Amino acid sequence: MLPQPWNTRSWESIAKKAQDYRDATIALIEPPLPDIEVLPLDSTPILKTILTPKELSITESDPANLVSQLSCGTLSAVQVTKAFLRRAGLAQKLVNCVTELLPTAAIERATFLDDYLKTNGKPIGPLHGLPISVKEHIEIEGLSCNAGFIAWNDRVPKANAHILDVLLAAGAVLYVRTTQPQTLMHLETSSNYYGVTVNPFNRNLSSGGSSGGEGALVGIRGSCLGIGTDIGGSIRSPAANNGVYGLRPTSYRLPMEGLSATMLGQEQIVPVIGPISTSLEGVKLFMKTLINAKPWIREPSLLPFPWRTESLLPTDPDGTKTLKIAIIWDDGVVRPHPPVTRALRTVAEKLKAVPGITVIDWEPYQHDYAWTIISSLYFCDGGSEEKAAISSSGEPWRPLSKFILTENQNVKKLSVTELWRWTEKRDGYRKEYANKWGDVDVILCPVGPGAAPLIDTARYWGYTSQWNLLDYPALVAPVTRVDPAVDGVETKYVPRNEKDAYNYDLYTPEKYAGAPVSLQWVGRRYDDEKIIEAVDYIKEKIGMPFAEFV
Amino acid sequence: MLPQPWNTRSWESIAKKAQDYRDATIALIEPPLPDIEVLPLDSTPILKTILTPKELSITESDPANLVSQLSCGTLSAVQVTKAFLRRAGLAQKLVNCVTELLPTAAIERATFLDDYLKTNGKPIGPLHGLPISVKEHIEIEGLSCNAGFIAWNDRVPKANAHILDVLLAAGAVLYVRTTQPQTLMHLETSSNYYGVTVNPFNRNLSSGGSSGGEGALVGIRGSCLGIGTDIGGSIRSPAANNGVYGLRPTSYRLPMEGLSATMLGQEQIVPVIGPISTSLEGVKLFMKTLINAKPWIREPSLLPFPWRTESLLPTDPDGTKTLKIAIIWDDGVVRPHPPVTRALRTVAEKLKAVPGITVIDWEPYQHDYAWTIISSLYFCDGGSEEKAAISSSGEPWRPLSKFILTENQNVKKLSVTELWRWTEKRDGYRKEYANKWGDVDVILCPVGPGAAPLIDTARYWGYTSQWNLLDYPALVAPVTRVDPAVDGVETKYVPRNEKDAYNYDLYTPEKYAGAPVSLQWVGRRYDDEKIIEAVDYIKEKIGMPFAEFV
Repeated sequence: MLPQPWNTRSWESIAKKAQDYRDATIALIEPPLPDIEVLPLDSTPILKTILTPKELSITESDPANLVSQLSCGTLSAVQVTKAFLRRAGLAQKLVNCVTELLPTAAIERATFLDDYLKTNGKPIGPLHGLPISVKEHIEIEGLSCNAGFIAWNDRVPKANAHILDVLLAAGAVLYVRTTQPQTLMHLETSSNYYGVTVNPFNRNLSSGGSSGGEGALVGIRGSCLGIGTDIGGSIRSPAANNGVYGLRPTSYRLPMEGLSATMLGQEQIVPVIGPISTSLEGVKLFMKTLINAKPWIREPSLLPFPWRTESLLPTDPDGTKTLKIAIIWDDGVVRPHPPVTRALRTVAEKLKAVPGITVIDWEPYQHDYAWTIISSLYFCDGGSEEKAAISSSGEPWRPLSKFILTENQNVKKLSVTELWRWTEKRDGYRKEYANKWGDVDVILCPVGPGAAPLIDTARYWGYTSQWNLLDYPALVAPVTRVDPAVDGVETKYVPRNEKDAYNYDLYTPEKYAGAPVSLQWVGRRYDDEKIIEAVDYIKEKIGMPFAEFV
Repeated sequence: MLPQPWNTRSWESIAKKAQDYRDATIALIEPPLPDIEVLPLDSTPILKTILTPKELSITESDPANLVSQLSCGTLSAVQVTKAFLRRAGLAQKLVNCVTELLPTAAIERATFLDDYLKTNGKPIGPLHGLPISVKEHIEIEGLSCNAGFIAWNDRVPKANAHILDVLLAAGAVLYVRTTQPQTLMHLETSSNYYGVTVNPFNRNLSSGGSSGGEGALVGIRGSCLGIGTDIGGSIRSPAANNGVYGLRPTSYRLPMEGLSATMLGQEQIVPVIGPISTSLEGVKLFMKTLINAKPWIREPSLLPFPWRTESLLPTDPDGTKTLKIAIIWDDGVVRPHPPVTRALRTVAEKLKAVPGITVIDWEPYQHDYAWTIISSLYFCDGGSEEKAAISSSGEPWRPLSKFILTENQNVKKLSVTELWRWTEKRDGYRKEYANKWGDVDVILCPVGPGAAPLIDTARYWGYTSQWNLLDYPALVAPVTRVDPAVDGVETKYVPRNEKDAYNYDLYTPEKYAGAPVSLQWVGRRYDDEKIIEAVDYIKEKIGMPFAEFV
C-alpha cells in the first residue's frame, strides 16, 4: 500500500498510530508483560517483582561480562536478547522511553548468532550477541525515522546508519528504539508522538535528553549499551540523570552517516554519536569496536587513527600516576544546586587523598560568551528547518522547543559572512581555552546546574554545551543520589543573573529526592582514551559511585 | 609616524612605494648584485656567471644536506644565509618573485645561531641555520601583510604566524618574502603591487600561483625550502611549473594561525599550508619538524597525531613493495597538453617494469561536478570580501581575478541553508570517491592541463582543486621538460567542451619550450606520510626526474 500524504491526517492521529504500533510491538513479548496499574515514583523496585532471577541477572550484568559469556556460549544470544526485550518492554510501561521493540528481527538475529557460534566454534565479532539499543533518529533500513517531528512520520530510510552496520558486523543485536524530543534540541525528552520520558528514579523528574529514551532505558537496565547523539549535552544529560555512563567523544572519530535530523551539512558545531552504558567497560567496548573497524574507509570525514590502548596517564619515576585534576565548582553563570556541589566536594576530598593526584580549582573562562557563540552557531539559518518541520504538520510546539528556538535571542538568520565571523570567534575562543590548560590532565565539573530536572525546566545548557563548542571529549559517571536530608537550600545565596535566579528558584530538595547525581570528566580535544583511562583509575582509587542505583 | 589613510594616496603610488622598498632591501646585499640589462628567456644560466662557486654549491644543496652541515658547523649559518640572500636578490631581478629581502634580521639571526652552536656544542633544533622563504600573506610580526590587495597595504601583524614560530624554534632563518597574486585566488602570480612573476625557465610563461613567488624562487634555487598555501592548487601549480617538489598536506595537520587572507572563518574548503622544496627530503624535513613540535597544543584545530616514520607501503611475503598505482590520463573535462601525456606515459612504462608495482587506469569520477561543488563553496558570500578589497583602493582587476570572481558562474551569495546543501553534496561526493579507491595505493595524475601556462591563461583548476575538494594529500614531483621536437600538437583531437577547446587552442609546442613538466601523486585522506614514502621509493626505482633543471 502506498503511504498516504500525512497532511490528510491530523497530527493526533499520526501520534496515536505511532503509539499503537509501539504497543503492538510490546504485545509480542513472551511471556507477556503485565500492565502496571499504579506507576510508582521510583520505577526500579517493581522490576524485581516481575522479571525472573535469570532475566534480572542477565540485564544487570556488565556488557563486557555479557560479551565474554556470549562468546563462549555460557549464555545464548537468544536468552540474552529475550531478557532485554522483556525488561525494555517493562521500561516502556514505567517510564515511556521506547518507540518500538524489534522482537521478531532481534530473536531471528540472535538465533543466527547462536548457530554461528555452534557452527564455527568462535564468536562472529567483539560484540557477539550483545543487545544494543538505538535512539530513534539513527536510521534503520525500512523503519520510520522522524527525529521527533510529526511531519517526518513517513520518512523511511533505505539503508542502515553506518554505525549500525559496523555494530552488526561486530555481532550486535538491535532490539529496541528509543524516544527523543521534538527537534532533538532539548535537554529533556518530550514529543507529540509519545509525550514525556520520565526519570526511572523519580517520575516527577526528566530523563534528560535528547537521548533521553536511551538514558532512561539504560538507567532502568532495559539496555546495557545504547547509542545516543550529542550536540549540546544530549548524551551526557541523560547519562547523568539516569545514573549511568555516557561519553561525548571528540568529533569525527565515530561513524555519523545515516542520521535523520535537521541542519544536515552544518559543520560549525559538529554533532557526535556516542555510547550510554551501565558501565565504563561498556563505553570502552563501544569505542574500541567502532574505531578498530576502520570506519574512515567508508566515511572519509572520519579520522583514521586507531584506538589507543597504551597508558596515556603521566607517571612519576616510581610508576605512580600523577594526574592533575582541575575542578569547576561553578561556571560563573549558573550556580549548581547543592547536591551537585556535594558530589564535587566528596570526589575532590577523596581525590586529594590519593597519592600522585593533584587537585586544583579551575577558573572558568568566559563560559557565558561560550554560550553566545555556540547558540549563535546552532540555528544559523534562523531555525527555519525546525520551524518548518513543526509547523507543517500542525503539531503544537513543546515548551522546550519554544525555549530554544523562539525565546533564544541568539537564533538569527545569518549571512554567510556573519557565519564566518562567528566561526572565527569559535576558533579564537578554542585557542584561548586550549592555552589555559597548561599541565592539567582532566577537568572535573558538573553535567548540569542540578540533578535530573523537573519536567520542562532544563533551560541551561552551559555545563555541557561548553565542551561541544570546544570539541573536547567529556565522560559522565554517576557519583551519588540527591538526599534531602543533607542537600538543603543555600538560603543566603543571591543569584547573579536571570538564568541563575531561574535555576536557584527551581531547587526544593524534596522534589529531587533520589535523583542520580553525576559528574563530568573532560579532556583536551582527542584525549578520548585518556579521559576514560583516568576515570577508570579514579573509580578504582576512590570507590566511585557512592550510591547504588539498580 | 602614524600611518596615513591609504585612500589619500593612489594605488599606483602605493605600489611604487612597495617596489622601492623591495629594491632598497635588495640594495643592502653585499657584495652588491649587478643589474641584469637584457633579461634572458631562460634565467638559470646567468646565475652561474654572477654567483661564486661556493654560493652556487650552497644554494644548490639539498636542504637536508645543508642542515647536517649547519648542525656540525661545516657550514656557518651566516655563510649559508648570505648565499641565499644573494641568489634570492638575483632571482628578483630575473623573475620578479620577491616582495622583500630581510638581510639585516636574517644575518643577525644566523649570527646568533652560529654563536649558539659554538657555545652549546649542539644545534638549536632540527632546522639549525636553514634559510626558509615565506609567501607574503603568512604573517611576520611588524611587516606589512597585504594578501595581494592594495587596500590592505597598511596591515601590520603584531605577531608571527604560528608556523613561523615553530620553524624559528627549530632553527630556521627567515630571509625573504615572496610574491602572490591579487586575491590569492589565481593559479598564477600577478598583482598591482609587483606585476607578474615569470617562469625561471621560460620568461614567457607563468611561475604558477598563488604561491608563485615561492615556486619561482625555489625553482631558481634562491630558496631550497619555502612555505606556500593551497586551497585549489596554489602550492602544487608553482611547484610543478618550476620543476620542484610541493606537497598539499591533508587539512589540519600543519599550523594555520596567522594568515592574512579573505574568507577567514570559511571551513567548507579548508586552505592548507605546505612546503615547496628543491628535494623530497626537504618536504619530509618540513612536515616532520612541524608535526613533531606538537602544534596542536597551541592551535587546537590541528590533529594531535605524530608524523609516522614506519613504512606504510604494502609488501608481499618476500618483502617486495606491492604498490598499486592508478593513472588519470585525462580527467574527462580538459585534456592535458602532449608534454603532460608524454610524462605520464614515460612514468607509467617505467613503473610497469618495477617488480611488485601494478599500474591501472583510473576512471575519473565526475570531475566536472567536483568543480561545480568546490567553486560554489569557494566564494559563497558572492565574493564580496574580494570585491570590496579590490574596489576600495581603486586598483584595477587583474585578468585572473576577473576570471575567477566575475566570469565564474558558480560565484553566488548563498544563504546558510544553501551552504549546508552544498556541504552535503561535498560530503556525498567525498564518500562516493572514497568508496571507489578499493585497494589502490596512489593515484598518479597531471598537475594541470599543460606545462607552465602562458601568462594569464591558467583558467582550469580541475587537476588540482579536485584534491582540495576531497582533502587528499597530493605531492608534486618534477618529471621532464617540454621538448617541441617530440611534444607535437594532437592535430586530430576534437575538444569536448568550451574549457577543453580553450586549453587545446593554447598549445603551440615552441611557446612552451623548456618548461618543466611535473606530475601529481595523490593518496587517501591523511596518507601524507604514505604518499611521500611511495614517491621516494618510485624515484629511486625509476630514476625520476628524467631532465635536469638547474
